[in-house]
Amino acid sequence: MNNELITKLLELAKIAATRNEVPVSAMIISPETGEIIAENHNRCEELKDITAHAEMIVIKEAMQKLGVKRLDGYDLYVSLEPCTMCAGAISLSKIKNLYFFSEDKKGGGVINGVKFFEQNTCHHRVNVYPALKDEFSQILKDFFKNKRNVK
Amino acid sequence: MNNELITKLLELAKIAATRNEVPVSAMIISPETGEIIAENHNRCEELKDITAHAEMIVIKEAMQKLGVKRLDGYDLYVSLEPCTMCAGAISLSKIKNLYFFSEDKKGGGVINGVKFFEQNTCHHRVNVYPALKDEFSQILKDFFKNKRNVK
Repeated sequence: MNNELITKLLELAKIAATRNEVPVSAMIISPETGEIIAENHNRCEELKDITAHAEMIVIKEAMQKLGVKRLDGYDLYVSLEPCTMCAGAISLSKIKNLYFFSEDKKGGGVINGVKFFEQNTCHHRVNVYPALKDEFSQILKDFFKNKRNVK
Repeated sequence: MNNELITKLLELAKIAATRNEVPVSAMIISPETGEIIAENHNRCEELKDITAHAEMIVIKEAMQKLGVKRLDGYDLYVSLEPCTMCAGAISLSKIKNLYFFSEDKKGGGVINGVKFFEQNTCHHRVNVYPALKDEFSQILKDFFKNKRNVK
């Protein structure tokens, strides 16, 4: 794990919040060079697409950029534990290592919920590194608290 | 369920096979009018994107066409039981009824595997109507048999 990337990931999630998007961010990283292949945040509001989660966007962007159908060997950094849909996509795309920095007890699909990478219907098991950090859960708490206050 | 739509769905899956795509097709239907809002097949090869499953494509297309972020009340017809990723997307998009016509014991996430719609981390439970028909499983068997013979 690279601390500079983690700081950048947090900044990206904060940008999402300013755009009224749920503040979740993701990056695809080359583990050899440390290069960021793709970085983005949730864009469900902007794209009017409830499936436009940060992970889905960066997986697609990285595949397009690299001209490949899968991301074998690449790392994925996500600010929040991926949901079931994204866990499925991460496995399909054959990402090697998944790092995430806050937990989603209600909607997560990696260390919570369906724990997809532990199931028999998961045909590529991603290495999972949860590295929970208060600042990542705090931006989500702040975002939803603000939303409730506005209503 | 509408037999004309089922026939059309099967034809669409067959078209996929001729394009070297895994023959899986999907349609979003308005239950009131019977109108097909979106129809497509797997396009993983064409788009070089392993997440370009038929369900993901039609969900996105239907949201774009209708200008909405979710598909509350709509029906989804799929030739094959959706995988875990697609089950997650189907729930997020709030589709009302899911009809599918072949089972995926190895990779399904609806009546097999994680059975996502039965889990606590699934916040919109879709009505599930499996209506298994031999011709739908047969096109998949034929496709993979041909693939093996070509190798």
